[in-house]
Amino acid sequence: MNRYSAEFLGTFWLVLGGCGSAVLAAAFPEVGIGLHGVSLAFGLTVLTMAFAIGHISGCHLNPAVSIGLWAGGRFAGSQLLPYIVAQVLGAIAAGGVLYLIASGQAGFDVTAGFASNGYGEHSPGGYTMTAALVAEVVLTAFFLFIIMGATDQRAPTFLAPVAIGLTLTLIHLVSIPVTNTSVNPARSTGVAVYAGGWAIDQLWLFWLAPIVGGVIGALLYRSVAGSKA
Amino acid sequence: MNRYSAEFLGTFWLVLGGCGSAVLAAAFPEVGIGLHGVSLAFGLTVLTMAFAIGHISGCHLNPAVSIGLWAGGRFAGSQLLPYIVAQVLGAIAAGGVLYLIASGQAGFDVTAGFASNGYGEHSPGGYTMTAALVAEVVLTAFFLFIIMGATDQRAPTFLAPVAIGLTLTLIHLVSIPVTNTSVNPARSTGVAVYAGGWAIDQLWLFWLAPIVGGVIGALLYRSVAGSKA
Amino acid sequence: MNRYSAEFLGTFWLVLGGCGSAVLAAAFPEVGIGLHGVSLAFGLTVLTMAFAIGHISGCHLNPAVSIGLWAGGRFAGSQLLPYIVAQVLGAIAAGGVLYLIASGQAGFDVTAGFASNGYGEHSPGGYTMTAALVAEVVLTAFFLFIIMGATDQRAPTFLAPVAIGLTLTLIHLVSIPVTNTSVNPARSTGVAVYAGGWAIDQLWLFWLAPIVGGVIGALLYRSVAGSKA
Amino acid sequence: MNRYSAEFLGTFWLVLGGCGSAVLAAAFPEVGIGLHGVSLAFGLTVLTMAFAIGHISGCHLNPAVSIGLWAGGRFAGSQLLPYIVAQVLGAIAAGGVLYLIASGQAGFDVTAGFASNGYGEHSPGGYTMTAALVAEVVLTAFFLFIIMGATDQRAPTFLAPVAIGLTLTLIHLVSIPVTNTSVNPARSTGVAVYAGGWAIDQLWLFWLAPIVGGVIGALLYRSVAGSKA
Repeated sequence: MNRYSAEFLGTFWLVLGGCGSAVLAAAFPEVGIGLHGVSLAFGLTVLTMAFAIGHISGCHLNPAVSIGLWAGGRFAGSQLLPYIVAQVLGAIAAGGVLYLIASGQAGFDVTAGFASNGYGEHSPGGYTMTAALVAEVVLTAFFLFIIMGATDQRAPTFLAPVAIGLTLTLIHLVSIPVTNTSVNPARSTGVAVYAGGWAIDQLWLFWLAPIVGGVIGALLYRSVAGSKA
Repeated sequence: MNRYSAEFLGTFWLVLGGCGSAVLAAAFPEVGIGLHGVSLAFGLTVLTMAFAIGHISGCHLNPAVSIGLWAGGRFAGSQLLPYIVAQVLGAIAAGGVLYLIASGQAGFDVTAGFASNGYGEHSPGGYTMTAALVAEVVLTAFFLFIIMGATDQRAPTFLAPVAIGLTLTLIHLVSIPVTNTSVNPARSTGVAVYAGGWAIDQLWLFWLAPIVGGVIGALLYRSVAGSKA
Repeated sequence: MNRYSAEFLGTFWLVLGGCGSAVLAAAFPEVGIGLHGVSLAFGLTVLTMAFAIGHISGCHLNPAVSIGLWAGGRFAGSQLLPYIVAQVLGAIAAGGVLYLIASGQAGFDVTAGFASNGYGEHSPGGYTMTAALVAEVVLTAFFLFIIMGATDQRAPTFLAPVAIGLTLTLIHLVSIPVTNTSVNPARSTGVAVYAGGWAIDQLWLFWLAPIVGGVIGALLYRSVAGSKA
Repeated sequence: MNRYSAEFLGTFWLVLGGCGSAVLAAAFPEVGIGLHGVSLAFGLTVLTMAFAIGHISGCHLNPAVSIGLWAGGRFAGSQLLPYIVAQVLGAIAAGGVLYLIASGQAGFDVTAGFASNGYGEHSPGGYTMTAALVAEVVLTAFFLFIIMGATDQRAPTFLAPVAIGLTLTLIHLVSIPVTNTSVNPARSTGVAVYAGGWAIDQLWLFWLAPIVGGVIGALLYRSVAGSKA
């Protein structure tokens, strides 16, 4: 049970920290943290939590990571379902706490997006569904490629939290304008259930693309890394 | 005595660096560092000082951390009072030096806030007291959860300063708009005594919420981490 | 073959992440990541990928790095050509994927620059060709100097990805206004082939200057480091 | 001779990277890196170079550091003069290269400041000489305190480059508005000799205050750290 609790809390932290910074601080007048600050926040949720629970659950915090690691031969299939359930529940719980805090400001409107992911007219920069699909597949593929590599026994694995967290920061620096950046179905779900409407309608892409990308990236690493991986 | 001196100096650094960046540089015309820069500054005070005095005092710099670690079974109760006294005195001394520097600019007005923490009409974004309470309790809980995890013997503890410092950065990236971010009663006190008025009136919340949150987070880690913690 | 695949994918990541952040996110209205965010993105491509493939190919991702390391006695001349081919092909492939994503936004115009490097009237800040040459030679020289030093057996080489990645961030913080920052002929080529026109005409400088600088920096390190290097 | 060459090149890098980012990129229209980016740049010069030459010269790059470490019993007095000479010459050489690059843009005016340090009417925020003195003494004292602590045999000294570099970033996040931040007489001298006028007239403070602060900080660490330091 401890590993599932850890995944629940860790994904809670990812959504509270990442989506929380976006909702509460990104566009604060004059001194807001902008997309750069939000990108750093998402990466730091993973970097910090990986030092705290890496030794308990591996700190996946993301169904695409769990499925990718399974495809890459690093994670047992029997653990997939409970991990994903814990991740999604943690994300939804965090969305609720964020809703509680955010609604403490006059004028808060959850239907304005609440940091949900979207494409087409709901992409921050108005990018098409095709652009969104390509971005989410390719970026999640590299995310898993790097996770596999940084946790390879030939790498200095005690630094994997730094490598993996900052990869998530980098992914956000590139793609918030395109999809608001998911690469994580749990993160997308955790806020979409509160935003409702289009956020739910478009949620399918943010399950499909990260999972497809994650599997591709993990298999790619195995083929490149050779038999010692 | 050495550990108390270290806590005094370390908390001095936290307030001088964190609140100093907020007071002196956050809103500098055109090129100010904004909330992102202030968030980085707070985190770096802990990251840097933990490498300098971690081996002397453990580098708590925060009554909520000392009390949380005591609740989590990592710190002796007999040390609580002298640690907290040293932290509060260090914070107040730093507030004084910051006052000395800041008042070297024409038009400086300490009653404008001096980086004090607040809620309701004194929240930077006008968030309610309830939102402030929730934010401070939840964020301090995760702060202690991560401190406990990153210093667990199963983690690469030589990297704990990085994990813990960057957790404080992340907490600020999320919550400066809500309360100006405390999660640290000493930091709140160190500037409130100069700002006076509402900053003193609202100080109770920034003792209560971080301590409650810190205890919750430490106990949560113990229950999740299992008997090896 | 594995090392060439790794260099292909790694350089793909450098261009997708670095040039991608510049094209998609740098000037996003109100909350864009600016030159600071782009600088961080470029550095993080190297930092993250070096943890993932450092143990496979050494993670050069840059013809000037491969040639510099060869001049410094750290890399076999017989590997130069396949490494450089893999790097350039990876960069061009990434440029293509970035084009696919970026063109998903109405009004996208690849001839506006597409993050290409330039001097004179095509320098972001209008810097002369001489200023561009000096900047690219000197900055690439220090890049190789630090790469040689951080991978010296007397240094903590497991931290070389951090040192080298953040050196690339620093180089961008200084010189984006001058040349849009190359220090990497593959990165320059990977976007210039899509931008065409002046980007191709000026491409020679971004092969010449980084290679000359890289060789100088590597030789400089050898002369300073002494016989133990 | 190798250590002096290393100090020359390292201090060159500090001035080229730190002052270079300030002169070339801080106020670039719309997307400039601001004081936050400049703060990061200064810190990264030390972080990166410490991994490259820490094993050659110790990577001081700063007369106040060399003198502070001597006062703290960590550096031989006989090495002080050649180290300081190498540092100042490296800084001046870097100022010259930066001048060469910066003057490649139409309208460049070195007398506008060229990233020189100043107080009173030449302080970026108009801070008094007293505020400048206090800031430079106190911040350099903590700089040396942390350098002493992070290189103490009880600390994970392989991470000292990270701790020390990010301390310099933090110092800049706080104090650029006050003095443009020195804490390093060589850095101040390396640009003042080109800016001339007031920058030379006020240079005394940026030799005096950092050296006084550095000695205080090193002695403070020795008194706090106990006999094992």
